[in-house]
Amino acid sequence: MTADVLVVGAGLLGTSVAMALHGSADVLLHDVDPDVLDAACRRAGARAWDGAERAGLALVCAPVSVTGDLLVALMRDGVAGTYSHVASVQAGVQAQVRSSGSRVDRYCGGHPMAGRERGGPEAGRADLFLGRPWVLCPAQETGADAVEAVAALALQVGGVPVHTTAAAHDRDVALVSHLPQVVASALAARLLVAPGAARLAGPGLQDSTRIAASDPALWREVLTANAGVLAPLVQGVADDLQAAAGALRALGEGPAEPAEALLVDLLRRGGAGRATVPVKRGEAGEAFASVPVSVPDQPGRLAALLVAAGEAGVNVEDVHVDHLPGRPRGVIELVVRPPAADGLRHALLARGWQVLDAR
Amino acid sequence: MTADVLVVGAGLLGTSVAMALHGSADVLLHDVDPDVLDAACRRAGARAWDGAERAGLALVCAPVSVTGDLLVALMRDGVAGTYSHVASVQAGVQAQVRSSGSRVDRYCGGHPMAGRERGGPEAGRADLFLGRPWVLCPAQETGADAVEAVAALALQVGGVPVHTTAAAHDRDVALVSHLPQVVASALAARLLVAPGAARLAGPGLQDSTRIAASDPALWREVLTANAGVLAPLVQGVADDLQAAAGALRALGEGPAEPAEALLVDLLRRGGAGRATVPVKRGEAGEAFASVPVSVPDQPGRLAALLVAAGEAGVNVEDVHVDHLPGRPRGVIELVVRPPAADGLRHALLARGWQVLDAR
Repeated sequence: MTADVLVVGAGLLGTSVAMALHGSADVLLHDVDPDVLDAACRRAGARAWDGAERAGLALVCAPVSVTGDLLVALMRDGVAGTYSHVASVQAGVQAQVRSSGSRVDRYCGGHPMAGRERGGPEAGRADLFLGRPWVLCPAQETGADAVEAVAALALQVGGVPVHTTAAAHDRDVALVSHLPQVVASALAARLLVAPGAARLAGPGLQDSTRIAASDPALWREVLTANAGVLAPLVQGVADDLQAAAGALRALGEGPAEPAEALLVDLLRRGGAGRATVPVKRGEAGEAFASVPVSVPDQPGRLAALLVAAGEAGVNVEDVHVDHLPGRPRGVIELVVRPPAADGLRHALLARGWQVLDAR
Repeated sequence: MTADVLVVGAGLLGTSVAMALHGSADVLLHDVDPDVLDAACRRAGARAWDGAERAGLALVCAPVSVTGDLLVALMRDGVAGTYSHVASVQAGVQAQVRSSGSRVDRYCGGHPMAGRERGGPEAGRADLFLGRPWVLCPAQETGADAVEAVAALALQVGGVPVHTTAAAHDRDVALVSHLPQVVASALAARLLVAPGAARLAGPGLQDSTRIAASDPALWREVLTANAGVLAPLVQGVADDLQAAAGALRALGEGPAEPAEALLVDLLRRGGAGRATVPVKRGEAGEAFASVPVSVPDQPGRLAALLVAAGEAGVNVEDVHVDHLPGRPRGVIELVVRPPAADGLRHALLARGWQVLDAR
């Protein structure tokens, strides 16, 4: 008997893959921890691997530090036709597979850009990968059929295959994931010089430090695995901030123009960099309009407001709720397509809602 | 005739103060730009100042670079009983008032912790200050009645007076506002080394770079005004990142333990700093529970979900909508008080909603 997919590692990602495949593929699960394996099999409706049964595709969903070892062992035993994994750093795993003498033509690395702040099989979700990029990183030797097998898996769980190389992947995730983590940690760490200051914090500080709450043990492993790629990026931010600190000190001493020009240049480059970041639906922030409404802080008002928007025929793309301690009213911002904004404003005003920037 | 309040500067803050006082105080408005003044008077229902009429309180709502000059001129003319302003940096303004020979006993600096990404009188909102800290920064010479007059104004517009000193204020806002701006700019600027990388971006990058889109001209002024206080904080983050970059480089060369320990220490300090940041309602993030629900990406589903929550008797504190390009379903996270979470899960499941972490 041959299964479709063997998932090795039954944490958040492995369990979610098995859940997403439930009903459309025969899935085997394996984990070193029998309790975790049992929980994942029950949650995903999958079978536990007996250590011998073969599968079309073996997918390692383990911590990055052990992913290479597991792949090499599975490939040595020849348990599958194609081998892949989901580790957040690719080049090291690929190099390990190659140096082990394994059949690299059967190997195609992959990395779904999806996750949650919680781990373990209980956190698994069948829709975790829906619409998310699933980055494919074949080696030069990888066969076309192996790439296709992993792309088919990505599509089957709802993901969007993105083709690149291990090196390009590692550089890109260093920029969009690993660097923000290190920088947010350094920013949030600075708050400890005066913990009381944060009582004045607004949404800017809340957003810019959110990921600093992430798990240090998990991140140590990721940062370590991508250290060589990440180091110059962290150094680049350190250099920019070193120069900014120097400019700020100089403002108290000499002519202001050079120092101000340096700060403005940093702010402008920051704006340009931010403009490259896709927001909801992968479009730039300017593609949406915000209609702010003042509402009493009472149960049910948010629902009533959205019902009113629906009655006006407007699709609300996102919602931001803003209320602070002691504030008797909150502001709810309805994010909509720009052409819909004026109609929504008028419709809400006509229904007695307190629209705040009715123009 | 003596008005209650003279607001000098009719931008976002000045117009919002006048709007918030409308109906409960006699407000005079002034601005160097007659078009701006006209727009603000119409929006707030306030009178334009004739340059001679006196007021109980004069409130300068101008850019920080001209706030001191305006205050000194108003105090020289003796147009009011008490003088205040709303600038985001306090010590320099206070020093300028003192060195001008003005009556510092009539002066009390202030800074409402409120704003919007848009400026100008059209962006003014009567509820801009509701529940927000309004920081009061009296000088040593400031009379108790002057402090009381500014505190009364803060309360009248719905704010929460917070008493401190100019020096403590400037240090605190450097930490919670100015430092995050510089760091977010430096992080986002780094994205320019590979603009295509951001196609893989998730919510972490979106949140941590959001404020990098802010106006460089406005921020140049704020950073310059608080340069002396901000410089060592920026230097501190630069030092942490310099050390992190060194640790990442060292991971490829020598024993891993010291480098990993440095990275973990930074991540841990970041987590501790993040834990000092108040989130919605001024409480820590752990004070809330999230119930994620998978919904088809159709108009009206968000409203229907919130109506269902309301029918279950649950007050939804916040909502996060997560959908990405090509994703046929979205995930809506309902943020509620922890005791309400289980009841909400069961109620939604009973109504046929696809709750994602039903336990």
